[in-house]
This record gives sequence, structure tokens and C-alpha cells, in this order.
Amino acid sequence: MSKVILAENAGFCFGVQRAVEEALKVKKQYNKKIYTLGPLIHNNDVVMYLEENDIYAIDYNDIDKLNEGDVIVIRSHGVSKEVTENLEARGLEVVNATCPYVTNIHKKVNKYSELGYNIVILGDDNHPEIIGINGWCNNSAIITKDGTFDQKLPKKICVVSQTTEKEETWKNTVSNLSSNTKELLAFNTICSATEVRQKSANELSKDVDTMIVIGGRNSSNTTKLYQISKANCPNTIHIENSKELTNEFIEENRGKKVGVTAGASTPDWIIKEVIDIMEGRN
Amino acid sequence: MSKVILAENAGFCFGVQRAVEEALKVKKQYNKKIYTLGPLIHNNDVVMYLEENDIYAIDYNDIDKLNEGDVIVIRSHGVSKEVTENLEARGLEVVNATCPYVTNIHKKVNKYSELGYNIVILGDDNHPEIIGINGWCNNSAIITKDGTFDQKLPKKICVVSQTTEKEETWKNTVSNLSSNTKELLAFNTICSATEVRQKSANELSKDVDTMIVIGGRNSSNTTKLYQISKANCPNTIHIENSKELTNEFIEENRGKKVGVTAGASTPDWIIKEVIDIMEGRN
Repeated sequence: MSKVILAENAGFCFGVQRAVEEALKVKKQYNKKIYTLGPLIHNNDVVMYLEENDIYAIDYNDIDKLNEGDVIVIRSHGVSKEVTENLEARGLEVVNATCPYVTNIHKKVNKYSELGYNIVILGDDNHPEIIGINGWCNNSAIITKDGTFDQKLPKKICVVSQTTEKEETWKNTVSNLSSNTKELLAFNTICSATEVRQKSANELSKDVDTMIVIGGRNSSNTTKLYQISKANCPNTIHIENSKELTNEFIEENRGKKVGVTAGASTPDWIIKEVIDIMEGRN
Repeated sequence: MSKVILAENAGFCFGVQRAVEEALKVKKQYNKKIYTLGPLIHNNDVVMYLEENDIYAIDYNDIDKLNEGDVIVIRSHGVSKEVTENLEARGLEVVNATCPYVTNIHKKVNKYSELGYNIVILGDDNHPEIIGINGWCNNSAIITKDGTFDQKLPKKICVVSQTTEKEETWKNTVSNLSSNTKELLAFNTICSATEVRQKSANELSKDVDTMIVIGGRNSSNTTKLYQISKANCPNTIHIENSKELTNEFIEENRGKKVGVTAGASTPDWIIKEVIDIMEGRN
């Protein structure tokens, strides 16, 4: 068995917790099949748990298959103004479980693009949160993955960040913009949950022999936790759940100090399973 | 004699040129002794030239000595709202020769402090430009010389810069603020004249054996040109005028490639004298 230390802050964030609870509440309220626009969170185990409760993910391209009055939940990542309007226009019952921190970004982007600012978003242009945010400024945003810019920048910029970005990349982005634009309005919209989780991972990974980062393969915030941990602790692995812990890995870490952290979409029960196995309780 | 190359952009900036011309125009118009609130520019030769034209610098502490109707020119650095009001209240004829780029900073600071932003100024807290700017937000600004901050920062910040700051320090300042505040409104108020002059000095100093930086000892923008040049060319000197060129220095640089640049307060005639001497024409 290993000596396992769980990061001070790890796992489910407020927004995700809220969206899952909302979906379950809506299911109870309507007592029929509930749909979520895309998987509610980036975690296969949670998705399976929801399906057991008659809550199914549906792709935006498939919404024609739904009937009037069907209930659809917008997940914590949020969507564009247009998508919500389309869902409503089709007669669906729309339940908005967008994380309030993301809604705050939508409002800022909407307001300041109307006030003549050019919107810049730091984030992954394929990520639903970014696609949603961009939909609040007529999809006109300049999107940067790493804070660098190829094009000439406009003079008046409002910049926001994906909630799960790294502070360092945000600093770089704002720094690069600051000398290439005259007026820069920067909203640090990195979620403090993300920040605190990242800080905890950073500290813990300096102090252990091995780090286990738990979270969905597609989860942006989990990938960042992995990168941060890996930089301090070369022996860092990324798993989705305890089933990926091989006997070989468990054996290698016998008597070692193992740190555990988890992304925002990882429920407590999965974290607990990993710790139990590494501590030899399974 | 040396081979002298003058930096592409050097010397008098628009704001200083304008203030000197304004003072001379006012002198002509009123045809009496004219006062400037502090030396019009940081250059002793120009100050002497102005005195020959009956234009004298006076300290703010001495304005009681002036009579009603006396004409006083506010120099390009600008002053606080309060100072202008005090001068007018004393019955003086106030001519405002504040650089329009500095006036723009005053307006921004005034507007955004009233809108609830906390003002941060990057600059030298002893410099008249900074003292003036701070006077447009009830002297409440947080002033940083190098972009670092000891104190905890407020959540809503509007940051401006002394017009003569280095781009690098501005980038650092905005970068440091960006991760310690939620909403940051950054106006890059570094004057493009300064920027262009600094870029020219930076390029030229990489390419010469010796750099001569001409400008007042107290001139902030000249000191920055010196620092930039010195970093590329260890053999860099800072002089106020051609009289400081020693025979020894001229001898040492015989046959060498010498770069020349000058701060915003250095008139063309002083630059020309330096070039003539180094090229052996005097």
C-alpha cells in the first residue's frame, strides 16, 4: 500500500454539482425522460449514473428527434443566445443549468461587444464553453489558445478567459495584449474553484513520489491539472476511474507517497475508490 | 573624427515642441514677462533660451509673489485640477500647454475613478506628470515604479502609464495586475513618440561602438533611453549638451561608429552641435 494524500481542493466544482442536481431535480419534477444538450459533464461514470436515472445526453444536431414539450437541460458550460432561442422556438421545455460564473461571462461579452469593444477569449475554440461564449458577441471573438496572436489587434479590446484556464496563460495573454492595444478591459474569469484546485495540485505534486490525476479524457481542467502536476512530479498519471489502476502501478508505488487530485467533473465516489485501492483497502 | 549615426527618431516630442511654441506665442501676444509653472522642459539650454525671451520658471510655492493678471503657462506635464483652480482663483491668466496626450490621461483617470475604479499609475511618484495625474482622482492612486505591488489590490482597477514608460515595464505591470484583480481596465498611455524613440535607440545601440544619449539629468525619458542603450552598448554616455564631450572621449572614438539619440526635451540645435563635434567639424 501507498501513503495517499488527497489534494486540499479536488473534484466537483460548484457549477457541475449544481447542474447534476438540477437535472436530477427536473427528472423528479417532470417524472419523464430528461435530455441534456451534450453530456452534462465530462465523466463517463457520472453519465452512466444519469442514464440509470433516465437522463440522456442528446447532440444539438439531433434535436429534431425531440417532441414538443420534451425537457432539455443546458449544461454548466452554457450555450449561445441563438441555441437557447432555437430550442425554445421548437417548443421544448428548456432548463438552464449554465454555471452562474459562465453566465456572468456571457453578460460581459454581450455588453462590451455592444459597447464597441472587440472580444478576445482565451481558451480552446473547440470547447463548448468557448463556443457558447462566442455566441454572445455574434461569433466575432478572437480566440487564442495560448495567449499569442498572429493578427494585428484592434485598438479597443475586452478579454475574458475560459473558466478553467491557467493563471500563467492568462497573465501572458493580458501581457501580450497590453502592448498591442490602446484600451484593454480584462475580466479575469478564471473560476476560483479552478484556481484553488490548480494551486493545491501544484503544491501537492512537489511533495510526492507519484501523482494520480482523475478526470475525463476530454476534460480541459483535468488536462491542466495533469500538466501542472507532471511539471513537478514526472511520475504523474491521468486516469478516468479506479479501473485504470494496473496491478503493476499499484505494486510500483508500494510504500511510496502518492498524491491524488481530480477535475471538476469527478464525483467524490470515484476519488474514494482510487484512494481505497492505493491504500490497499480493495 | 567618428562616423556618427543619428537615431531615426530622437529629440523634441510633439507635446514639448507645442509647449515651447505656446510660451513664445503668449510672450509675443502679451508682450510682458511670462511665467511657467516649473521649468517648461528638462533642458537647461532651452530654459536659458526662454529666459532670454523673458519667459521665467516659477515654483508653485512662490506663486504668491505674482500679481493679478500675470500670465502663467502650465507646462506639457500637466497639473492637478486643484492647481489650475488655485491659479485661477488668484486672478492669474492661466495658459494651459499641457500635452494633449497627458490631458487624455487626466480625463480617463477622472472618469473611471468616478465610475468606481481604483486608479493605478505606472510611473515615478516624484515626477510632475504623475503628481498631476494623481490629482485627477483625489490623489487616491496606487503608484508603482516597476509594476510590482506590496499591498493587496482592489477588485476593480483602471491602470494608466506615465507617457515616457518602457513597454516592457507596462507589460509587467498589466501582467501582475491581471492575476490579482477581477476587472482590469488598462489604457496603454505610453506616448508613441516615446515608444518610437526607444525602439530607434534600441536598434541603433546594437549596431555601434559608442552611444551618446543627450538630454536633461532630470529627464525621465532620457534616463530610459540611456538604460536601453547601455544594455546593448556598454560604452554609452549621458550628456546634457556638447560641452560635456571631453577631448579624451572624442579621441577615444576616432574612427569608431557612434550612435546619437536624444530625449524629448532636447532641441535640434543641441543634437546638431554634438554631431558636428564628433564628426570633427568643430
